[in-house]
Amino acid sequence: MFAYIIDKIVPYTDSTIHISDLALQRGYGIFDFFRVRNKKPLFLEDHLDRFYASAGKMLLQSPVDRNELTDIIITLVEKNNLSDAGVKVLLTGGYAEDGYTITQPNLIVVVQPFKYPSEQQLQSGVKIITVNFRKELPDIKTINYQKAIMMTPAVKAANAVDLVYHHDGIISELPRCNFFIVTQEDVIKTPDQQILLGVTRKKVLQLARKKYKVEECSITLNDVYNAKEAFFTSSTKRIVPVVKVDDYMIGSGKPGKITLDLLSGLIQHEDEVLR
Amino acid sequence: MFAYIIDKIVPYTDSTIHISDLALQRGYGIFDFFRVRNKKPLFLEDHLDRFYASAGKMLLQSPVDRNELTDIIITLVEKNNLSDAGVKVLLTGGYAEDGYTITQPNLIVVVQPFKYPSEQQLQSGVKIITVNFRKELPDIKTINYQKAIMMTPAVKAANAVDLVYHHDGIISELPRCNFFIVTQEDVIKTPDQQILLGVTRKKVLQLARKKYKVEECSITLNDVYNAKEAFFTSSTKRIVPVVKVDDYMIGSGKPGKITLDLLSGLIQHEDEVLR
Repeated sequence: MFAYIIDKIVPYTDSTIHISDLALQRGYGIFDFFRVRNKKPLFLEDHLDRFYASAGKMLLQSPVDRNELTDIIITLVEKNNLSDAGVKVLLTGGYAEDGYTITQPNLIVVVQPFKYPSEQQLQSGVKIITVNFRKELPDIKTINYQKAIMMTPAVKAANAVDLVYHHDGIISELPRCNFFIVTQEDVIKTPDQQILLGVTRKKVLQLARKKYKVEECSITLNDVYNAKEAFFTSSTKRIVPVVKVDDYMIGSGKPGKITLDLLSGLIQHEDEVLR
Repeated sequence: MFAYIIDKIVPYTDSTIHISDLALQRGYGIFDFFRVRNKKPLFLEDHLDRFYASAGKMLLQSPVDRNELTDIIITLVEKNNLSDAGVKVLLTGGYAEDGYTITQPNLIVVVQPFKYPSEQQLQSGVKIITVNFRKELPDIKTINYQKAIMMTPAVKAANAVDLVYHHDGIISELPRCNFFIVTQEDVIKTPDQQILLGVTRKKVLQLARKKYKVEECSITLNDVYNAKEAFFTSSTKRIVPVVKVDDYMIGSGKPGKITLDLLSGLIQHEDEVLR
């Protein structure tokens, strides 16, 4: 395995950065993550859009432009010879002598083996728990996942696979996924505030609008508990059906029809894009 | 210069960590920072108390106990042969193959040259600006300073030296310092909520209570603008007089009497502790 570190491709085992990097010193960095299917990056343009947008919001000037970054990604994917993988592109605040001031950002690109949700999860659905929390910078894909990782034991203790944040009862998102419900009236709803605009969220909304009523709006805890269906989306997980939130069964307790229809539509869309 | 990386002392220039570290991957880490004066760590026990408390709250098991860590610090300070320096002790989530799960935490200790506030700053006082913001984990000394670093250009544009956070008008703290005001009635007040409990804050409160009326309480923006004096405290900066907040002059626009009295008391206390 190989990674791209700052300005060159090196073996993964030798992929180190100096401790003066602002990501280590001050948690200062942004990233993006996408899947490679059949050696082709999926929805790469959307991810690059967001990568450069995150960088801009955090005042980080990428050392490479979009074309150069695309070349680096393609070269690295080929060199690692993985047909299906995840690619993480990370940009830090750079090496800071004073441990505080942004310098020349460091670019890191890593290709990681990657797993889809299990058949079991797709067939039976999963449980998530709710956590009252408000992210500092929800609209930027920063590297900060402190709260999510701190909550891991609570997630496990509840026999859940993940958590969804709400702030005083208003739902936002999962730490790495966007959240959707389907109401009893078959309206698909997803939060529009305090979220990261996921690429898969965007694709799912596009697909959903062709067949269903869709609303990006405020969603309360109560809306979730009383939903007919629920699911979350991400670039690696696609769509995962949620059948339990806290101790509330969602709908019939099985993956919903619309959820599964959207998943099959998304896979079909991926196939078309990669053809 | 030398640093301690994971399990040994190495030259600072060779002080690297692998990119799979959770601090880099997910901003997951805690630290503490203290001064060394005349080769002696200042208020070390207080800082170690907080270091282990932060680690515990973030579910990080330090690879070394308190005595071992003290030995590492003393050895590193001697080896670097700096009589006055700052020491940063950092604990990360460790090397995570999946980029998300806490493993064996990595310990990093760095000794950094360090500067006190300038004479000019102490004699004339400084300006700070206010920023509406709420930290995710205010009571833990995590490595997350994203918002503060993002605000650096705004601080500079306002000819200020730093910023103080408030949330909807209620003051909390500066990114790396605690904040105090002295009211027109000579009462010393400092926020008691949404703050990191600073070691210098604690020392200043102890000193202040011997001579003045002191309150740890809620402080509003209005309280600040109408204060007779204001200052901030930190382990590296001790006490810095604030004479302007946003566009409001504090008191007479000069460092306040009580502020300077507390600073001289703090320096005297340091001298006694180090004797």
